[in-house]
Amino acid sequence: MKRKNRGLLIGRMQPVHNGHIEVIKETLEEVDEIIIGIGSAQLSHELKDPFTAGERVLMMRNALIEEGIDLNKTYIIPIEDINRNKLWVSQVEMVSPPFKKVYSGNSLVQVLFSEEGYEVIAPELFDRKVLSGTEIRKRILMDEDWQSLVPKATVEIIEEINGVDRIKHLNKKEISEL
Amino acid sequence: MKRKNRGLLIGRMQPVHNGHIEVIKETLEEVDEIIIGIGSAQLSHELKDPFTAGERVLMMRNALIEEGIDLNKTYIIPIEDINRNKLWVSQVEMVSPPFKKVYSGNSLVQVLFSEEGYEVIAPELFDRKVLSGTEIRKRILMDEDWQSLVPKATVEIIEEINGVDRIKHLNKKEISEL
Amino acid sequence: MKRKNRGLLIGRMQPVHNGHIEVIKETLEEVDEIIIGIGSAQLSHELKDPFTAGERVLMMRNALIEEGIDLNKTYIIPIEDINRNKLWVSQVEMVSPPFKKVYSGNSLVQVLFSEEGYEVIAPELFDRKVLSGTEIRKRILMDEDWQSLVPKATVEIIEEINGVDRIKHLNKKEISEL
Amino acid sequence: MKRKNRGLLIGRMQPVHNGHIEVIKETLEEVDEIIIGIGSAQLSHELKDPFTAGERVLMMRNALIEEGIDLNKTYIIPIEDINRNKLWVSQVEMVSPPFKKVYSGNSLVQVLFSEEGYEVIAPELFDRKVLSGTEIRKRILMDEDWQSLVPKATVEIIEEINGVDRIKHLNKKEISEL
Amino acid sequence: MKRKNRGLLIGRMQPVHNGHIEVIKETLEEVDEIIIGIGSAQLSHELKDPFTAGERVLMMRNALIEEGIDLNKTYIIPIEDINRNKLWVSQVEMVSPPFKKVYSGNSLVQVLFSEEGYEVIAPELFDRKVLSGTEIRKRILMDEDWQSLVPKATVEIIEEINGVDRIKHLNKKEISEL
Amino acid sequence: MKRKNRGLLIGRMQPVHNGHIEVIKETLEEVDEIIIGIGSAQLSHELKDPFTAGERVLMMRNALIEEGIDLNKTYIIPIEDINRNKLWVSQVEMVSPPFKKVYSGNSLVQVLFSEEGYEVIAPELFDRKVLSGTEIRKRILMDEDWQSLVPKATVEIIEEINGVDRIKHLNKKEISEL
Repeated sequence: MKRKNRGLLIGRMQPVHNGHIEVIKETLEEVDEIIIGIGSAQLSHELKDPFTAGERVLMMRNALIEEGIDLNKTYIIPIEDINRNKLWVSQVEMVSPPFKKVYSGNSLVQVLFSEEGYEVIAPELFDRKVLSGTEIRKRILMDEDWQSLVPKATVEIIEEINGVDRIKHLNKKEISEL
Repeated sequence: MKRKNRGLLIGRMQPVHNGHIEVIKETLEEVDEIIIGIGSAQLSHELKDPFTAGERVLMMRNALIEEGIDLNKTYIIPIEDINRNKLWVSQVEMVSPPFKKVYSGNSLVQVLFSEEGYEVIAPELFDRKVLSGTEIRKRILMDEDWQSLVPKATVEIIEEINGVDRIKHLNKKEISEL
Repeated sequence: MKRKNRGLLIGRMQPVHNGHIEVIKETLEEVDEIIIGIGSAQLSHELKDPFTAGERVLMMRNALIEEGIDLNKTYIIPIEDINRNKLWVSQVEMVSPPFKKVYSGNSLVQVLFSEEGYEVIAPELFDRKVLSGTEIRKRILMDEDWQSLVPKATVEIIEEINGVDRIKHLNKKEISEL
Repeated sequence: MKRKNRGLLIGRMQPVHNGHIEVIKETLEEVDEIIIGIGSAQLSHELKDPFTAGERVLMMRNALIEEGIDLNKTYIIPIEDINRNKLWVSQVEMVSPPFKKVYSGNSLVQVLFSEEGYEVIAPELFDRKVLSGTEIRKRILMDEDWQSLVPKATVEIIEEINGVDRIKHLNKKEISEL
Repeated sequence: MKRKNRGLLIGRMQPVHNGHIEVIKETLEEVDEIIIGIGSAQLSHELKDPFTAGERVLMMRNALIEEGIDLNKTYIIPIEDINRNKLWVSQVEMVSPPFKKVYSGNSLVQVLFSEEGYEVIAPELFDRKVLSGTEIRKRILMDEDWQSLVPKATVEIIEEINGVDRIKHLNKKEISEL
Repeated sequence: MKRKNRGLLIGRMQPVHNGHIEVIKETLEEVDEIIIGIGSAQLSHELKDPFTAGERVLMMRNALIEEGIDLNKTYIIPIEDINRNKLWVSQVEMVSPPFKKVYSGNSLVQVLFSEEGYEVIAPELFDRKVLSGTEIRKRILMDEDWQSLVPKATVEIIEEINGVDRIKHLNKKEISEL
């Protein structure tokens, strides 16, 4: 068996958006297989992290099919935070097939993998102002167009789970602190 | 044995105040028994969470007696945070007798219990501006009248544990970061 | 407010049985109030620990009412394990009203509280061979008489939650290790 | 989007063997999609749990391809233990797409999912004496034939990571307790 | 064996600076031995907590030698946070030799040890504006003189681990939220 | 600064005995500095792990002084378990100065460090039958001679903390399961 050249792409994917899909397509031109790590897998139901890992897995999986990306070349792995940075690379290695390159625009991720000897690549993102989870979550709250920034799969899952209501309800101020 | 109709009231109760007692009295007109969940039970000695769960249990217990509320109809249960929202309803179910209705003004609590199929009721609070833990903790720090906003039991426990000193000391700035 | 003389009785109470009730009655002759700690509150659905903390709270609460014990003199507090023995006394102090005496027949509990300066009392248990959780769980599995060893409240809760089925199912061997 | 009928198969898969593949094939005749949960994902390097979750993901993924199973119909999800049984079903729901049926031969898994209202199915395993992780790990230690009990993918991964050496070394007695 | 009079000095030491060394020297005039607790030992690779516990142990150890402080009179102990304030004093007692006095300028540390009956002393720090970890980390980021505020040992370790690069890289904004 | 050649010796040290001291002396002939890791630092008050990390630090520290070993060449570091083997090497690296060689007779430690690329050396222990923590704890329970197997420092600390009583009390059977 020839060893595969695998790359890791890691992000919170709250939610999966077109920027992720672009990076995955580009990365697949450089590696044999891509591991898509769903970060902070234990978080959900917060304004900054509204969706569960399972919901994000489903978005990503359906988006890959929608985009005609070969599933034989991808892994989707939820990754829980370990809350001690020095151990986080090992936490990723624990749940992931082996990989050599790491694709991330996050400086903490870059520092941690670099110090452990990995090659770290910062993907150039297209249209970076609008293609961010922060922007999309803001638009959902504001009833602005967010649907054009994400794969159809993301729209469908968010509808199926009443994700817009969830985010709006989480944004309500408490009547009074009990 | 006829199944009891139980309601859950959950809050951090930092400290127990007159608003809690009002809600408990009203809720007891709708349910057979009320479970009073002391939330974030693992927190204490912080400005926003000064009292231990044990101190809050004591305040609540003595306040119920002081108000002549029938102890046969109440449970007081400390509930630790689990720090993964999707699991929190199960964490509450783990330590509590079974219940059908949830009384809470907190939007996260409302979302989490609604998604698990519970009936969620937002209690109308009397005098909501002053009857909040935030307001009471602020008044303690400022040496303003806080005693009139809480049951006598709360005043007595805070005195017994030197709670005013604790809060004021926690508010001191560090001399210098060591 | 005169400081109360409180005693702590702590056990896993899997399930609540007549021995617990006897010890509570005796202890209440020595102290003003008794704190009943439901230990290993995070455990359930194991042969040695079949019942959740909430189920055990319910058994104890109903048994106290059944026995005519004054609820004004009792606290029922679920206590999670902390898995570092040196911290366990503080974990108990965190969720409990203050107490001076500890009633326990468990040698680890005795050592830990003694080393922290508490007075520790080993209750003399009546009929100690049959009055143990181990014995009762064994009888449930074997379809032998267990009902006479526990309060009516325990029988009722175990019926309500299909506790006998739960224990018997947990005892089944796996078809094959998957 | 029509809601998919999904089934969950969960096991520790230490290692992936022919029994798993048979169950997956059969299950796919009953459901639209199968979620393959890699249980106790945090464990590795123990005699009973020698392989990391990442290694087990890789075995399963390659075995599915080897067997010609449609990846569009499968999810492979590592699932960490939560160590409080009452919360474990929620832990699985957190990281998994939604599902209706659970396939498991493990009695604890059966009890936990049944109590939460899931349909639980115990798969009839072929040749259950030899097709178990326990048997395979024993044969690896004994230098007996284990290769015929697992997919070629499992053999390849175990070779690539020197898994046989790992298991044999873990079996060595300590020279002396330091 | 005569019982030693020991004092505990506790701080995050991010990084070890001249203020720590001054306090250690002064404290050693009052006690037989000093326990130097490296707090928040599990944190690293954050702007406020850039260095691992191991790196901080090394800085402190080499600084003590550099300053000619008798190692026979000091202990250096990394101490992980326990994230429940009521248990933190026990967490410190667990990993440390016994001590009677606590030296700290942090108000939470002062409250927690006072409530457990310890004598707490707030060290008067020399030149407190500049001698703080916050100031030193800011100067590192700004390329201002920080070297004069710390022992030579701290400079050497930070160089050896490329600590300046680490801090600057952690300060970079993410290209875009993935 | 010339980089030091450091070795790690890791063990539970329940309690510190003559075998540890022998290995330390031998190891110091091969390395510049030795890091003595006190393993399972969170455990205490169990028959297999009776002493706290702080008590073990004290034993080791005083034994080194007693034996005239140069403190300038040693580090004593308590190391908590992380309960996920794949992360344990990183957990050790987090709290320890950097090292190149690992001295251990424990096969799990050997496997974990080898897989991460460390050189692992199994120290030949003198008189391995009697020089083990297991043997010493057994002799303490049996009132047999254990004092000759440990440094004087260990005897003194165990006396100071009433360690013999602790072990004997932990060995008592519970009167009855409460």
